[in-house]
Amino acid sequence: MPQKRESMSELRRDITTGEWVIIATERGRRPEGFSKPELRESSPRAGCPFCPGHESQTPGETYAVRSEGDADGPDWLLRVVPNKFAVVSPESPFDQKHVAGPFPWASGFGYHEVVIESPRHDADLTSMDPGEIHRVLEAYLARAGALRRRPHVRFNLIFRNHGEQAGTSLPHPHSQIVALPLVPSGVRDRLESAARYFGATGRSAYADIFKAESNAGERMIVESNHFVAFEPFASRLPFETWIVPTRHRAAFVDIDSDELLDLARVLGQTLRSLRVVLGDFNYNYVIHSVPCGEERRADFCWHIQILPRLTNAAGFELGTGMEINITLPEDAAARLRAAADHLRGGDSRNTANEASQCSPA
Amino acid sequence: MPQKRESMSELRRDITTGEWVIIATERGRRPEGFSKPELRESSPRAGCPFCPGHESQTPGETYAVRSEGDADGPDWLLRVVPNKFAVVSPESPFDQKHVAGPFPWASGFGYHEVVIESPRHDADLTSMDPGEIHRVLEAYLARAGALRRRPHVRFNLIFRNHGEQAGTSLPHPHSQIVALPLVPSGVRDRLESAARYFGATGRSAYADIFKAESNAGERMIVESNHFVAFEPFASRLPFETWIVPTRHRAAFVDIDSDELLDLARVLGQTLRSLRVVLGDFNYNYVIHSVPCGEERRADFCWHIQILPRLTNAAGFELGTGMEINITLPEDAAARLRAAADHLRGGDSRNTANEASQCSPA
Repeated sequence: MPQKRESMSELRRDITTGEWVIIATERGRRPEGFSKPELRESSPRAGCPFCPGHESQTPGETYAVRSEGDADGPDWLLRVVPNKFAVVSPESPFDQKHVAGPFPWASGFGYHEVVIESPRHDADLTSMDPGEIHRVLEAYLARAGALRRRPHVRFNLIFRNHGEQAGTSLPHPHSQIVALPLVPSGVRDRLESAARYFGATGRSAYADIFKAESNAGERMIVESNHFVAFEPFASRLPFETWIVPTRHRAAFVDIDSDELLDLARVLGQTLRSLRVVLGDFNYNYVIHSVPCGEERRADFCWHIQILPRLTNAAGFELGTGMEINITLPEDAAARLRAAADHLRGGDSRNTANEASQCSPA
Repeated sequence: MPQKRESMSELRRDITTGEWVIIATERGRRPEGFSKPELRESSPRAGCPFCPGHESQTPGETYAVRSEGDADGPDWLLRVVPNKFAVVSPESPFDQKHVAGPFPWASGFGYHEVVIESPRHDADLTSMDPGEIHRVLEAYLARAGALRRRPHVRFNLIFRNHGEQAGTSLPHPHSQIVALPLVPSGVRDRLESAARYFGATGRSAYADIFKAESNAGERMIVESNHFVAFEPFASRLPFETWIVPTRHRAAFVDIDSDELLDLARVLGQTLRSLRVVLGDFNYNYVIHSVPCGEERRADFCWHIQILPRLTNAAGFELGTGMEINITLPEDAAARLRAAADHLRGGDSRNTANEASQCSPA
């Protein structure tokens, strides 16, 4: 006899974007079952343009942290430089849109910088201490703030790619900042969806999510004074994780110094918990924030979206924009909470700090 | 001295979606430079649920082509069966939307079928003759037509995943059809963009593209009586290829029999040309078409979008919805035209047919 279908599924709607996701878990599927990317041999330091001593292989610094010495010298703790293979550049003219027949185009004006997070080639956010992560976040804040004040810049994105499946092959730890003279349609869609929710309910979707997740707890991973980290109800990808501030602000650049210190701890805890469950997983994270001049919006709250790259999008997702997620967010959260508990128990250095952060805010 | 940036880039707007793409070519980058996925050992036929003799490992047929014998017996040329690991199912209730706190959800109602394209485990669309490909297209047409008439179905997608980077690990050649009780937001966005273009110009964006590409020729690959295959001006991915009918119709299911025969030839030629340039490349294709009841739209034209999976999306793309394409579509088209010419010269069986197809329509 032909066999029956084995799976049932559920559609869930992300109230921040209005998009439906299909949650289709396969019985017995476990994170261990995801195809693990082969870990490539790290590029030898000799060939790494981001390692100390190779400063001449990158464009000149726009920001750096060093105890002493000259710009573009070797004694640094963190550097920010223009991307040598920039996708947009201030050297391109900021020109009007052109047309070629029916086709609109424009020069690739903008800024594209790389945050080289550590002089250590093998460092990783999951092994850095909160002070080192804080230094990275300070660089984000300084450079995003500066680029947003440049003429013609309308929007910037801060993001990080870890591993080849996440779109990078350069293992030296780094993040990127891109600033553009336009607001990409995916960003505009997110904002319009937030505005519609606010218009219909009088409340921010992000505030509603924050409240619901804190109360329910079943998708929660880490709670601190200023942030919550959780698996969203309509997770698009297995182990998708959001970090949302308790203080509702539209723009990341409006974070205050206490929040920045707390975020360094929460980001580290969250990534370490993911690593316990998933191994050295490939991931992207992005900081969703508002375009320039929209910092006062009440309908949107900046947040970090961590996107593990465990599966490959297929034709259905590419054709519809609708994701199929094979992991129940509640299951992912339970595993990540257990990992976070384990890390608190096992890491005496951080026990006191982390225990206090995890009491409800 | 720190080095200067090396790349310049261009922004291009897809007039069918309104989305901008960054075309950022890196000097000297060639298709050969894309990371090639390791070709996995094909699953042994013994374990392949789609091979003849293993019919009991799938749910029962909804459509089949066989010369003789019973349904679900082994003597078939093509089978369509419900997906055993369906992402949506008619066994799920078609219910109203529910809410859990602020979170909307619904049961995963719908249809998910697999088109097993050949009894041959190692067959591939690039090696099938036009008759075999035509059989596959006939199955698409029959099953999409049937599913669109089912109660509650609002939309269907026909798609194909080839290779692990394209989201499949089952090597036996197959396509998929999903039918849903809703129109995904990515589909709705595409239609609204087409409506806006039509409203502003009085013309279909697809008709304008067809005319411009035919006239310019620089992004054209194959032209036949009923179809053109070309690299779109604002290609989102390297070697993205569209096949668009000369007769402007909104719904794939309204294709006529002459067109279906011609499409079998053009699809085969196009995929073979891509294979000459890219090797056994991973790809998805999707047939973009309209939701049920919108078959009369004048602003939209159904088309096939072939998406080679040569690169991995990174944080920028995931955070903005804006793609970065490192290959100039005009360069990709020149290589694919050369490959198409080479195939016509080298394949005496098809020379006459294909030469006649390639005269301008």
